[in-house]
Amino acid sequence: MIDLDLEADLAAGFPAALEELKRFCRIPSVSTDPAYRSGIADAAAWVAARLRQAGFPQVETIATGGHPLVLAEWHATPGAPTILVYGHYDVQPPDPIANWTSPPFDPVVRADRLYARGVSDDKGPLLIPILVAEAMSRRRGRLPVNLVVLIEGEEESGSPHFEPAVAALKPRLACDLAVSADGAMWRPDLPSVTVASRGLVALDVVLTGAAKDLHSGRHGGSAPNPLQALVRLLATLHDHEGRVAVPGFHDGVRPPDPAILAAIRQADFDPAAYYAGIGAVPPVPMPDGDALLVRQWLEPTLEFNGIAGGYAGPGTKTVIPATAQAKITCRLVAGQVPAAVLDAVRRHLAAHAPSGFRLEMPGHGSGTPAFALDPGLPGLAATEAVLAEVLGQAPLRVAMGATVPIGGVLERQLGVPTVFFSFSTSDEDYHAPNEFFRLENFRRGLVAWARLLDRLVDLPRKREP
Amino acid sequence: MIDLDLEADLAAGFPAALEELKRFCRIPSVSTDPAYRSGIADAAAWVAARLRQAGFPQVETIATGGHPLVLAEWHATPGAPTILVYGHYDVQPPDPIANWTSPPFDPVVRADRLYARGVSDDKGPLLIPILVAEAMSRRRGRLPVNLVVLIEGEEESGSPHFEPAVAALKPRLACDLAVSADGAMWRPDLPSVTVASRGLVALDVVLTGAAKDLHSGRHGGSAPNPLQALVRLLATLHDHEGRVAVPGFHDGVRPPDPAILAAIRQADFDPAAYYAGIGAVPPVPMPDGDALLVRQWLEPTLEFNGIAGGYAGPGTKTVIPATAQAKITCRLVAGQVPAAVLDAVRRHLAAHAPSGFRLEMPGHGSGTPAFALDPGLPGLAATEAVLAEVLGQAPLRVAMGATVPIGGVLERQLGVPTVFFSFSTSDEDYHAPNEFFRLENFRRGLVAWARLLDRLVDLPRKREP
Repeated sequence: MIDLDLEADLAAGFPAALEELKRFCRIPSVSTDPAYRSGIADAAAWVAARLRQAGFPQVETIATGGHPLVLAEWHATPGAPTILVYGHYDVQPPDPIANWTSPPFDPVVRADRLYARGVSDDKGPLLIPILVAEAMSRRRGRLPVNLVVLIEGEEESGSPHFEPAVAALKPRLACDLAVSADGAMWRPDLPSVTVASRGLVALDVVLTGAAKDLHSGRHGGSAPNPLQALVRLLATLHDHEGRVAVPGFHDGVRPPDPAILAAIRQADFDPAAYYAGIGAVPPVPMPDGDALLVRQWLEPTLEFNGIAGGYAGPGTKTVIPATAQAKITCRLVAGQVPAAVLDAVRRHLAAHAPSGFRLEMPGHGSGTPAFALDPGLPGLAATEAVLAEVLGQAPLRVAMGATVPIGGVLERQLGVPTVFFSFSTSDEDYHAPNEFFRLENFRRGLVAWARLLDRLVDLPRKREP
Repeated sequence: MIDLDLEADLAAGFPAALEELKRFCRIPSVSTDPAYRSGIADAAAWVAARLRQAGFPQVETIATGGHPLVLAEWHATPGAPTILVYGHYDVQPPDPIANWTSPPFDPVVRADRLYARGVSDDKGPLLIPILVAEAMSRRRGRLPVNLVVLIEGEEESGSPHFEPAVAALKPRLACDLAVSADGAMWRPDLPSVTVASRGLVALDVVLTGAAKDLHSGRHGGSAPNPLQALVRLLATLHDHEGRVAVPGFHDGVRPPDPAILAAIRQADFDPAAYYAGIGAVPPVPMPDGDALLVRQWLEPTLEFNGIAGGYAGPGTKTVIPATAQAKITCRLVAGQVPAAVLDAVRRHLAAHAPSGFRLEMPGHGSGTPAFALDPGLPGLAATEAVLAEVLGQAPLRVAMGATVPIGGVLERQLGVPTVFFSFSTSDEDYHAPNEFFRLENFRRGLVAWARLLDRLVDLPRKREP
């Protein structure tokens, strides 16, 4: 059921599609920083307009407690399955901006890659199904399935308003399967589908000593130094092997899925190549490759994402700062409860905080549990079949260290599973300077989404439309 | 030998002196940050011009490897002692600028205090002897002593070029006593002279993991996190009581001077008032006041002045940064050798650094040893007598936690002792936002410097002029 005419249309339209993606990437839609508020509004409006232009008869920008959702509905094929397509229009902060070769919001093609903040995560991947729906509608006058497209604007800040919004929109989001255009493919050389991902909770640790910055000569030895206290406090969170040492943190952790362990053995993960790839000196002794991948996919973490306090400029400043802070995120595995993990970390920090300091531990949302897909899911089989065709090789079923909160949300709220069908690749620096998207995968993604939607016509119906 | 006419002139000239100090403080002469290079040049030129205007017949701006020195000479009184006056025109960085009530380089008087970066450390205090020399010359046509004024521009960055410059200028700096206009008085309510100060060495610690920032979801658990490594490494530098735990750090430390211990007992230092004064929650149990002051004045420290790495903005950013860094300064006491302390800290850090990271430890100059004055020094007796007159109470001999490198430099290079005669007070936030200088002390300082110069006519001559 391959529509070669449609695929020719998509190929012919590619130069225009690339220009559109550049326009989308010029909008600085950083969700986590209030300074980019107008970029968020512009990106939501851009997505809504693009969906209307593609032919979606019903497109709406929906206010949440935070950044708006864009919801588009196209129920034009009675009796066919309904597919919910997920993506997000928000992007990571561009810092450190000085490390970008070209400006983060000025997209540039170099060596068949488009460089821009958000191009791989998730503006390129989410644009693909919209372009495919438009092409299908133009050539055939109809879509093979009913589509509900839901694009959020807070994925990069932990989707704090997504679940309540989905709950409120339940009837309009009813569907047979969710397909996420977010969630990168693992390796450029190895087709894969992601069947599990880690969860996430986030909190800050803020220690305050004096009410103002003090001279470290006059006060050193007598005044509380919150940097010194923070260092000592944070060092209690891991043991000497780097494992999380917080009582209660691992409560409920389930053993890893044997299917994923089998994929790990098959993947032949090379630790030396991994460290070379990220440009790091390998540790001594070199870890076993399988064990390293288990740590990356299947074990929880407690990671410091930022520490700040005092003077960080050139030269020296003999200051004892009033305040020091750290930003922490924890990746969770199946069985861990986000609220319980947050509680455990806060209890540990409070128990180990020294006297003479004020401790604050503000959180960022309620967190996301880990996600795991039913191995027998028909929608999963469909995505695997399409990837085998388009990429020429049967994909591995892999886990993902990163967090895509929507799997759990759509399962809980709509009772549907989510398959991940993104054409970004996890080496595309999407949380670092010089984020890029491979144009080869942009082209392949258009073909693959077209074939997937055609194939999903045969999806067993979960519920009445 | 009090010249009431001269003191009347100084009082009459005070409003103009205040305006001049404001002009001086408008020049942003931050020595530690290259962004302020033109402020440094402007401040040096301002000081040189002001010395010429005061009547100094020979004024020169002298290039060093770093920021220039200003040297003024007035050898107009054959047979009289020669006094070298020291000060510095550079200032601390103004960060965090947001915490200033009025802009740091826009001087404002509030409640008989002048607020500006550098007003207390050291622009106000160094302007005083220049104004006094000018007033003496105008009223009497001569100075009581010969004056050499040496104003440097790198005090706030550890004076890296000061000692070689003094060595090169030896013949022109020959003198009988050095008097420093830098080095604050201890407490506003208790006259004191400083007879000892701690030394200083500075270094940075930079840990690098991967070559670029990484996504903490994809890489968390497998990629090296330099923040986690830095926290663990820095935590080894102190023991559980907060004492420095670096082998070799305390080598050579001499027991505290009994005279200063006696002053500490006499000072009746109140720990509860100290913590209240800096706005900190006191530790439990409350430390003994004398012990706290011993720690502040007479014990060495290893202080973190800044830690930076990763994301520090609003919200969250799920990043594993490539690099994390800390800025460290150590205060030294009598007997510690700066180079040996730096070596000990570097050896300790290198020994405890985990594998899988690149460790760099750039230094900032060669450091400054601690300083201690001969208790029987005639110049010290002269300053004490003047302070007793002007402040109405015999001053205590105290130590200082902070570092004034010049004492050691002038001792080594010129063979002269340095007495500290500054009219700033150590609570004037001179390394923090909202630095101020008490105008009352500006007025008193003018009188006191006039009386001191007159009194130093009788100083025993150390060498031929």
